[in-house]
Amino acid sequence: MIFEYSVKTDRAQQLVDVTAKVADAVKKSGKKEAHVLISVPHTTCAMTINENCDPAVPSDLLRRLEKIVPVHDPEDRHAEGNSAAHLKSSLVGFSVMMPVSDGGLLLGTWQGIYLCEFDGPRTRRLVVSII
Amino acid sequence: MIFEYSVKTDRAQQLVDVTAKVADAVKKSGKKEAHVLISVPHTTCAMTINENCDPAVPSDLLRRLEKIVPVHDPEDRHAEGNSAAHLKSSLVGFSVMMPVSDGGLLLGTWQGIYLCEFDGPRTRRLVVSII
Amino acid sequence: MIFEYSVKTDRAQQLVDVTAKVADAVKKSGKKEAHVLISVPHTTCAMTINENCDPAVPSDLLRRLEKIVPVHDPEDRHAEGNSAAHLKSSLVGFSVMMPVSDGGLLLGTWQGIYLCEFDGPRTRRLVVSII
Repeated sequence: MIFEYSVKTDRAQQLVDVTAKVADAVKKSGKKEAHVLISVPHTTCAMTINENCDPAVPSDLLRRLEKIVPVHDPEDRHAEGNSAAHLKSSLVGFSVMMPVSDGGLLLGTWQGIYLCEFDGPRTRRLVVSII
Repeated sequence: MIFEYSVKTDRAQQLVDVTAKVADAVKKSGKKEAHVLISVPHTTCAMTINENCDPAVPSDLLRRLEKIVPVHDPEDRHAEGNSAAHLKSSLVGFSVMMPVSDGGLLLGTWQGIYLCEFDGPRTRRLVVSII
Repeated sequence: MIFEYSVKTDRAQQLVDVTAKVADAVKKSGKKEAHVLISVPHTTCAMTINENCDPAVPSDLLRRLEKIVPVHDPEDRHAEGNSAAHLKSSLVGFSVMMPVSDGGLLLGTWQGIYLCEFDGPRTRRLVVSII
């Protein structure tokens, strides 16, 4: 069972909390015990899980990641100029997965599900599939 | 089918081999052909697979990762001071998955399953679910 | 259902497009709606998804990643001298997963599936399992 959502990002780099969308897909599926895979069919954005309580966590994450993989690198050959976004996506990964238990996402108290925009703003596809 | 284990870490940063716990869950499930998802419901620890033969591999990993994502960064805004642990977790990832074949984990000769503590010591939850 | 392929790499570091192999496994499985897990039973190579249109993308990725995790580090203790490859593998990850819809891989327009060689050349095992 596959559900698809649209996520509009409004900055070049941004973490968007999509936990509610994933919970919505699980609810629509009617499944009580299952697994959910959340993936993005893109090459310059990614999926992760992280703290969704203090907004300083996503902003520290993006700032620190930018230090490690800076947007600009004079040696890049890719003409679109977004090789950093491609690498960030491969490092963070294109999907996350978790169990569904008693109809709810099996997430920790502080865990939220984030779509990571690394080359925005764009409209991104979020694919939520139930296993 | 979901199994949960407790993992006590005793250092600030540490790789703990949990392969035996995962194998135990697979055995208890009675499944011969399946898949196993190992995840942590936390935001400052992670899951990975790596060599479990030479103990220098996990220690080189942690030391090199610390160079890339150092604990201290004066620009961090997150008041708990553990933004590095949050980023390390997102880079390494919160779950690993592998096939179960003939009742055993389909792992390579040198592969072990590690819980990665990045903000310990703490007691962590290890969630092993069979698909 | 598990399919195994052999992938021969011919450089020390290389991204090998294995999308056709994965599509072949899905076709052989006869499954129309499913999920596919692609994993490597190794500790110095990894799996990722990224753009498979402009060959500058994989080469920029490898070059930038080498800057972040250089092969040589005088502090490494692991006698084999490939600790960088072990860390790169843990950062990129040992598996990717995606839905199968209407008998085809649910991939974006620009997405290809890559085996990442970080300590080659070697012959690597590619494990494709259908869920």
